[in-house]
Amino acid sequence: MTTMLKAQYAERGPIPQAVIAPVPFERPVLSQGQALVAVLAAPINPSDVLMLTGQYGLLPPLPAVGGSEGVGRVVELGPDTQGPAIGQTVLLPAGAGTWATHVVAPAARLIPLPNEADPQQLAMLTVNPPTASLLLSEFVALQPGDWVIQNSANSGVGSYVVQLAKLRGLKTVNIVRRESAVAGVQAQGGDVVLVDGDDLAERVKAATGGAEIRLGIDAVGGKATMRLAGALAESATIVNYGALGGEACTVSPRELVFRDVTLKGFWLARWFRTTPQATQYALLTELAGLIAAGKLRTPIQATYDVAQIQEAITAATADERQGKILITPAHG
Amino acid sequence: MTTMLKAQYAERGPIPQAVIAPVPFERPVLSQGQALVAVLAAPINPSDVLMLTGQYGLLPPLPAVGGSEGVGRVVELGPDTQGPAIGQTVLLPAGAGTWATHVVAPAARLIPLPNEADPQQLAMLTVNPPTASLLLSEFVALQPGDWVIQNSANSGVGSYVVQLAKLRGLKTVNIVRRESAVAGVQAQGGDVVLVDGDDLAERVKAATGGAEIRLGIDAVGGKATMRLAGALAESATIVNYGALGGEACTVSPRELVFRDVTLKGFWLARWFRTTPQATQYALLTELAGLIAAGKLRTPIQATYDVAQIQEAITAATADERQGKILITPAHG
Repeated sequence: MTTMLKAQYAERGPIPQAVIAPVPFERPVLSQGQALVAVLAAPINPSDVLMLTGQYGLLPPLPAVGGSEGVGRVVELGPDTQGPAIGQTVLLPAGAGTWATHVVAPAARLIPLPNEADPQQLAMLTVNPPTASLLLSEFVALQPGDWVIQNSANSGVGSYVVQLAKLRGLKTVNIVRRESAVAGVQAQGGDVVLVDGDDLAERVKAATGGAEIRLGIDAVGGKATMRLAGALAESATIVNYGALGGEACTVSPRELVFRDVTLKGFWLARWFRTTPQATQYALLTELAGLIAAGKLRTPIQATYDVAQIQEAITAATADERQGKILITPAHG
Repeated sequence: MTTMLKAQYAERGPIPQAVIAPVPFERPVLSQGQALVAVLAAPINPSDVLMLTGQYGLLPPLPAVGGSEGVGRVVELGPDTQGPAIGQTVLLPAGAGTWATHVVAPAARLIPLPNEADPQQLAMLTVNPPTASLLLSEFVALQPGDWVIQNSANSGVGSYVVQLAKLRGLKTVNIVRRESAVAGVQAQGGDVVLVDGDDLAERVKAATGGAEIRLGIDAVGGKATMRLAGALAESATIVNYGALGGEACTVSPRELVFRDVTLKGFWLARWFRTTPQATQYALLTELAGLIAAGKLRTPIQATYDVAQIQEAITAATADERQGKILITPAHG
């Protein structure tokens, strides 16, 4: 008989791996409309960690199971329930609590995915690829040949920005915080990769032949936002979607007032809340197709079982990662 | 015979009153199309001081005469020149170098103003009132009854924001940096006046009954921008137009990402450059009418002759002013 396990937290605290632990549970009895899904893979995203520490913009009621996205295989359908066939690979609904061996979900909300595609890459479909896609499409009207600049280019979102930009004919300037991250971003197709520093604007100018860059994507905050602003064209927009540096975004009035730069934020959870279901479905389907075809992928550093959740979160929050950390439950 | 005097600078430097000095000049011989105007009053604006220190976004070629706005009376018209009658009160064109007893300007660019209105109040027409008006109109579509929040409420622009908001049926929360500035802003009609501090959002909520504030106007920068953001409704906009605090604007990703706050800048010089002449003229005419009718006025702390330009700038850059500093040339 299968042991079912979920990574659960009953309180929040500053050390995320200290508040969460693997908890065994009984095989649930399904109601009509429900499906039992065996999880194949579920990533640890920065937003998941912020939910454990209490710093995220939306916090589920406690106790909660960690993990907001992932992929699984249908194991059982509830009585009189229409849904994907048993054995079908499916995308779990956003916020399902995916760091578990099994998840109970509404059968109607499971999105079928190609069974033959890599479930680990598909497991990262819901959060980072749509974020990258919408950062590139929702703020500045870009044309093929246009340049975009982003920092945190070696992050999960950063890698999707590089690849999606390339697929759309855009060119990217990619900023990283350490020399050791340059090669990885170049390998993913970044046109220009630079290490952040005070003379950034000059180096960007030299590397792009003085291109007019109208979109800056910021996930670092602090003075990194200001350095990004300095590398942008007049009347450009910076979109922030995170604060990996732990500090508030800083932009000088010189950029805002004299150079007409705008600073905005992007939050995928808001987009999901305010966008018609059909539009969301169309975007996820397009991105799933790219992932299944191997045109969109992000490096994975390591995978862990649900029983290793604390080690996994320690690895996910370490300073120098080489890729994403995934929970891949053992189904023995 | 009249002595003509202009406040001229041939270099820029960190101490603005050290680079400028009164310089006598000969009565100019006018060409066709020119007018000689005797200056009645010209203010010292923060932007004028930034031109002396070199920190402004547009810097005139050197040597230059200080002062970018003012009012005068027509003394003489060039040969075969159409223009306002001799003795007519006129608005000088923006950037005319108005800290002088006399200015030569194109007759066609002089805007006639009511001779009977207060020239000192009219002298401040070109810069601060349009800034205040456009801050209130160009970024968020506001309806009568809506609230607006601004810091630096006791500045020149701040006082016009209070008065124009009231004329348009808007309510204002006004933030000042010291207790001694509260009464003045209340006297101008500020609905709520608060001293800046860390619990600002809570105090704003209490004072407005939890009003949704969708527009924040920032002239301070630094953490004052972040405190303003915290007092705003979701999806609100902050417009920065200066950095009186000397620090870059800071906004936390929490406000940008989770609360969808946007940070933009406003620069009147850009608006003048990109807006049709007729629209500019309509706005200035509307504002001139309000000033002439006494419905729009700002406190004046002191007036100085052109010969006293250094004292005047020292007063204009002092920490605690009670109103604007004006150059009012002696016409003996």
